[in-house]
Amino acid sequence: MSQIKPVGREKPERRRPRTPNPEARRRLMEAAARLIRKEGFPALRIDEIADEAGLSVGTFYLYFDGKADLFVSLVLEYTEQLQERLQAAYRTEGGPVERLMRGLEAYLDFVEENERGFLYFRDAGGIDTTVGRLATWAFEQHAKSLQPLLEEAMAAGQMRRYDSGLLAQAMVGLNQHMAGHWLEQKQRYTREEIMRFTTTLLGVGVAPA
Amino acid sequence: MSQIKPVGREKPERRRPRTPNPEARRRLMEAAARLIRKEGFPALRIDEIADEAGLSVGTFYLYFDGKADLFVSLVLEYTEQLQERLQAAYRTEGGPVERLMRGLEAYLDFVEENERGFLYFRDAGGIDTTVGRLATWAFEQHAKSLQPLLEEAMAAGQMRRYDSGLLAQAMVGLNQHMAGHWLEQKQRYTREEIMRFTTTLLGVGVAPA
Repeated sequence: MSQIKPVGREKPERRRPRTPNPEARRRLMEAAARLIRKEGFPALRIDEIADEAGLSVGTFYLYFDGKADLFVSLVLEYTEQLQERLQAAYRTEGGPVERLMRGLEAYLDFVEENERGFLYFRDAGGIDTTVGRLATWAFEQHAKSLQPLLEEAMAAGQMRRYDSGLLAQAMVGLNQHMAGHWLEQKQRYTREEIMRFTTTLLGVGVAPA
Repeated sequence: MSQIKPVGREKPERRRPRTPNPEARRRLMEAAARLIRKEGFPALRIDEIADEAGLSVGTFYLYFDGKADLFVSLVLEYTEQLQERLQAAYRTEGGPVERLMRGLEAYLDFVEENERGFLYFRDAGGIDTTVGRLATWAFEQHAKSLQPLLEEAMAAGQMRRYDSGLLAQAMVGLNQHMAGHWLEQKQRYTREEIMRFTTTLLGVGVAPA
């Protein structure tokens, strides 16, 4: 597991288990994720998480330095899960543009499943960690995995040539923004409308046909 | 001045001046803005702000409930300033697309002048206030003022027809994301490169010419 840590918030690493138990850590993370789905992150208490996991508060502190450390660990875990799904979509059969669309669907699936966690990350992801701003790090993970597919599409003449780094950033940024807007405006727009709007705008832009 | 307040952070309105002095409030806001430009928001102390304004800490608390309240007041003030500049750009001579470009330049001017404040707002703007999430409120202000220009461009056949609300959100969201990326990558990209990239992407999209 990565060693990315929040900066300047909690006392670092007071205690460490002599024989770390990945199973206990996993149970605590899963308990936190279940509670976040129900009540969101801000209201979450450490004793509740320990209770839900059937473990003690003391055990919680063997694996996490506090709530900010748990938050960073959850973001790492979920970024990894999302990366696996995106990369699986990018590796499917078909042309690069088609695979890109499957990636966008996979992203929206993930956002829909993790609605509260996604919105909380959007609002609290700006925290400083040992690898810099957490949200910037997450954007970079997604942009880096998207970039080769964009380059493939450009090389195949299926996509206009742009700086692939900027294009990957723009796509990831726009998709995150529109997914958040969709969740806040679910009574106004369906997922299909957001998906169609975003892909059309990215596809052909605003210039009249 | 608007009554938008942070929610659940600071004790509300302990004292109010009997004869409020807009000049003292303004001096405190300007002192805070100067200090933020130099050292950013997180390190800012209330006694420093009072000092810089040549006023007492007690006077500070006559006008603000604390740092979160000051932050919300600054965001309101800066959103208003930015709105004035954007709307002035939208009202210039020329076709709607040309005026839109002037708006984007005005936005980048503002971001460049207020770099630290802009980045801090990007990272901390997700806080809850009496009008909901502060960043959502700010996005709405910008999207609402952009929407009529987009509708004008669509009606004049100078822009492809989209849902103007979604298009305004997308443009504001993409511009904010790319402006933040530019500030974080200033050694890699110039302002002109970011401007050209964003306007080309929004103009013609990724479909091959």
